[in-house]
Amino acid sequence: MRNFKVILRYEGTRYQGWQRQDSTSNTIQGKLEAILGKMIGNDFVQVDGSGRTDAGVHALGQVANFKIDTDMTPREIMNYVNRYLPEDIGVIDICEMPERFHSRLNAKKKTYRYRVWNASFPCIFERKYVYPLEDALDIEAMKRAALHFIGRHDFKAFTSNKKSKKSTVRTIERIDIERADNEVTFTYTGDGFLYHMVRILTGTLLEVGLGRRTETSVQELLDHGTRDMAGVLVPAKGLCLVAVYY
Amino acid sequence: MRNFKVILRYEGTRYQGWQRQDSTSNTIQGKLEAILGKMIGNDFVQVDGSGRTDAGVHALGQVANFKIDTDMTPREIMNYVNRYLPEDIGVIDICEMPERFHSRLNAKKKTYRYRVWNASFPCIFERKYVYPLEDALDIEAMKRAALHFIGRHDFKAFTSNKKSKKSTVRTIERIDIERADNEVTFTYTGDGFLYHMVRILTGTLLEVGLGRRTETSVQELLDHGTRDMAGVLVPAKGLCLVAVYY
Repeated sequence: MRNFKVILRYEGTRYQGWQRQDSTSNTIQGKLEAILGKMIGNDFVQVDGSGRTDAGVHALGQVANFKIDTDMTPREIMNYVNRYLPEDIGVIDICEMPERFHSRLNAKKKTYRYRVWNASFPCIFERKYVYPLEDALDIEAMKRAALHFIGRHDFKAFTSNKKSKKSTVRTIERIDIERADNEVTFTYTGDGFLYHMVRILTGTLLEVGLGRRTETSVQELLDHGTRDMAGVLVPAKGLCLVAVYY
Repeated sequence: MRNFKVILRYEGTRYQGWQRQDSTSNTIQGKLEAILGKMIGNDFVQVDGSGRTDAGVHALGQVANFKIDTDMTPREIMNYVNRYLPEDIGVIDICEMPERFHSRLNAKKKTYRYRVWNASFPCIFERKYVYPLEDALDIEAMKRAALHFIGRHDFKAFTSNKKSKKSTVRTIERIDIERADNEVTFTYTGDGFLYHMVRILTGTLLEVGLGRRTETSVQELLDHGTRDMAGVLVPAKGLCLVAVYY
């Protein structure tokens, strides 16, 4: 069995997220597994992703790997898969990896980006990739608030997953908040992100930017906060998995 | 009557172009006229555009004007129109102009951009705004060929409109051809463009870039060419009206 790593780009709008569910659901993992299964002659191929992306979330550089027995070159596999994938999913790179490579277990860090359209007129061309918010945002206040999140913290107040007994401690390496024309982008790099974490962090920072929450309240959320004290969950369509690092 | 100038942005994919046709057709001019008509109390409002854009062609900055009798501020008109326009059309700016301003008659020059997706993997997020072409392109050869088009020339070989008796002489001020990552963009600025002219110019330059046409053949097309000797008409979806200058 040969082990292939692929970099995937997709617009999440039409999908119920990355993870395969039942046979009637529309997921990115499901699409890819069906095409690869056909390619090797109607067998099951398991595709492992670096992590799930939720319904409606996009990816510029999701990473996945799969093991198949084939004589095809990586390039031939990529071309075959791209021929059958719908127009909103594409394999943008492929390479063969050692047998032990696993896209999720070996991932060292990830970068996510959240895009806010901050203008008094609608976004047209990129409307499916941004969250529109017309009110004025204090970028400097959000930058100062974001500094509290940098480093190793328990982010239990910033996830929608109540049931999990797993650790909610994560390390955020950097958060970049930038305005470019009519858009404000939040870029997060860290060793891992909890369920809904990037969207709740962004919702919390936006509340600071709107003057509805103090910069210092962010530290209190980390110290002894609960989900209901943190900011709103902003819409999926503004979120994109930019890259996975190994 | 007050005269308002608007700057419009639209994704042309779903439309039969700018120009109003019959009542069942889906055009940008038609949409705008219907909304403005309702706004002033079910009267007809004529919206004049700087020029037509064809079916499937996009606009980053189309300009139009209309005369109405109203007490509303420009901002109120813009907000009203944006509330009723579909998500793929937006008014991005508005101002009141002197009575004699006419968006088409006063236009001094225009900039169009044609985007080619030139990579061995599909374009995902911007797929509706680019023409995909996988083969290698010789950018420098296209730049040299494009120099022949600069200046005042008879572009009769570069239009699909055979019937017109109007002048086919136009002045192109500049053509910029640039590669940025996986995209090659052709940006044209001139005093006016004939029907299909930008798409045929681009098709002709692409044939030079692909090595299927010599750089000097371009000059022959200008000197004594006919439409069938020029390059192919490239698809509408790669074309965008960027700006109109007054």
